[in-house]
Amino acid sequence: MSDKVLLDYGSGGKASQRLISELFMRCFDNPELRRMNDGAVLSVSGRIAMSTDTFTVDPPFFPGGDIGALAVHGTVNDVAMMGAVPRYLTCGFLIEEGLPMSDLERIVESTGKAAREAGVWIVTGDTKVVPRGAADKIFINTTGIGDVIVDPAPAGDRATAGDAILVSGTLGDHGLAILSTRQGLSFDTPILSDCANLNHVIEKLLRQLPDIHVLRDPTRGGLATTLNEIALSSGVTCEIEEDAIPVKPEVRGGCSFLGLDPLYLANEGKFLCILPEAEAEAALAIMRADPLGRDAKRIGTVTPTDKPGSLSGGGGRVILKTGLGGKRMLGMLEGEQLPRIC
Amino acid sequence: MSDKVLLDYGSGGKASQRLISELFMRCFDNPELRRMNDGAVLSVSGRIAMSTDTFTVDPPFFPGGDIGALAVHGTVNDVAMMGAVPRYLTCGFLIEEGLPMSDLERIVESTGKAAREAGVWIVTGDTKVVPRGAADKIFINTTGIGDVIVDPAPAGDRATAGDAILVSGTLGDHGLAILSTRQGLSFDTPILSDCANLNHVIEKLLRQLPDIHVLRDPTRGGLATTLNEIALSSGVTCEIEEDAIPVKPEVRGGCSFLGLDPLYLANEGKFLCILPEAEAEAALAIMRADPLGRDAKRIGTVTPTDKPGSLSGGGGRVILKTGLGGKRMLGMLEGEQLPRIC
Repeated sequence: MSDKVLLDYGSGGKASQRLISELFMRCFDNPELRRMNDGAVLSVSGRIAMSTDTFTVDPPFFPGGDIGALAVHGTVNDVAMMGAVPRYLTCGFLIEEGLPMSDLERIVESTGKAAREAGVWIVTGDTKVVPRGAADKIFINTTGIGDVIVDPAPAGDRATAGDAILVSGTLGDHGLAILSTRQGLSFDTPILSDCANLNHVIEKLLRQLPDIHVLRDPTRGGLATTLNEIALSSGVTCEIEEDAIPVKPEVRGGCSFLGLDPLYLANEGKFLCILPEAEAEAALAIMRADPLGRDAKRIGTVTPTDKPGSLSGGGGRVILKTGLGGKRMLGMLEGEQLPRIC
Repeated sequence: MSDKVLLDYGSGGKASQRLISELFMRCFDNPELRRMNDGAVLSVSGRIAMSTDTFTVDPPFFPGGDIGALAVHGTVNDVAMMGAVPRYLTCGFLIEEGLPMSDLERIVESTGKAAREAGVWIVTGDTKVVPRGAADKIFINTTGIGDVIVDPAPAGDRATAGDAILVSGTLGDHGLAILSTRQGLSFDTPILSDCANLNHVIEKLLRQLPDIHVLRDPTRGGLATTLNEIALSSGVTCEIEEDAIPVKPEVRGGCSFLGLDPLYLANEGKFLCILPEAEAEAALAIMRADPLGRDAKRIGTVTPTDKPGSLSGGGGRVILKTGLGGKRMLGMLEGEQLPRIC
């Protein structure tokens, strides 16, 4: 094969077949993929979760990960957040002509490794190569399905007044890692993306605490935006305590230097868990027993929207209680803080 | 909303929410999408087909269709070819900053219309906007799942010596429509893309003739490449008769003018059906009763690879019998005939 990706590799013809058999099959190998059909025939539970994401992260290689691993983590996590055990992924590669073949190899290997770690099969895919200048290096779409293991499944509209709001770890790592790489900034303590497969820790939680109301990974738009979406869908207020929100000191420092708010930065290996107050401690214990939930914290409580004395006039709201005892509304991300963060 | 797509619309924040609620929800509306989760929870049969494709067609609007309709047709058809009734689609939009909002609206409306016609729900999606120059106008990934209704399902490795090879209609229309638009060519008889949802006619075939061995839509690489893939997977030879292959006179003319072979051009509304000889006439009757199979023809026969006197030395081969009684090998597409055809 050439040392650069050629248009031919996306033709659907002989060169495509060669790329598929020599690279994708080697890195993704599993029995379903080996059948080389245009799609896959799969056995599932009858009640499945399905999610899709297109990854455009710039640069494609960043401290702590790359676009291939991220494309797996992102979709595996979204499927897990639906109360499901992720099973199968599809992978659509969109490649700019001229991408170094060694970059593609690294990315595909990393995609395969992330899938194996998640315990999912990449069962079918698609590769398109577009002429130079029609895309920027590489974009990857992944779509995942998984077996839903709880009923009702956690959902954004199930947050209930009285529920505890937990977060699985520190916030802002991914967003700041990408931004500082892009800007060529380096900090004393290197800032790594937190991108990771959350499905195993989520499965432990769901098996032991099937009544979790909401699971959500705060990616684009960060914690503040995700909580606003939940508050809106559920018709509740989310009250969180500023001092309880875990943020690494180096991330806090970097954010303050760059004028960014870690509550609006993307995370790729963290999740929010909203569940009945009585189960909060048990959930924290399960999360903390897993390396990916080591820094789990309770950060707040769900309250009714019409609560007397609340700042919220109605609809869903997010209120941040500051260290000094003040309260302020935390709005949804308005503009685009960081394009191509995921 | 602005008259151009802004970066903000892909931020995951307020502007994204507005785009989703004012455009996507209006065009795709269905109960699952209305829940506004990061994914969908779905009921399926337990045995499903799954397929994915990223659409990069250039130009996004072409005679007979646009990238939105094509993105639905392509994946609906791939799912149907697996022996399934397509049920759910995901839709990942990747948009270049500055795309006219009116273009996006036309595309999203057309996507929604194609989904309604196919009888599928678009249950979850993703929208990314990348800075000007990082993508060319718009790319769409769709991933589809459907309930497999026959067992075993048709598959590329099931072609058997003695099977009849049928094609549902004329070949080369989509490829030539795109190419002539791109080159600014016009012909006396306008050449339209054949892009269409094949799932309804496929379902009729499967319900009445559940023993169909192979269904495949000859998209990129055309009939010749698709037959080669099948011959390879099944370890058989496909012998087809040149004179039996339906090609519209205007497509034949355009191809000869441009030096293209219609057997290698992409189709987006045609399928190959390979099934036991005894069922060939019944299948043709079902196909011809549907507007999308009006021009269905039997074009050849599957033979063993080691057939004495055959041109093929082993492995899978495709042999074209010419009108003059000669035989020639029809290879797989070698290079890229037409980038960004789908």
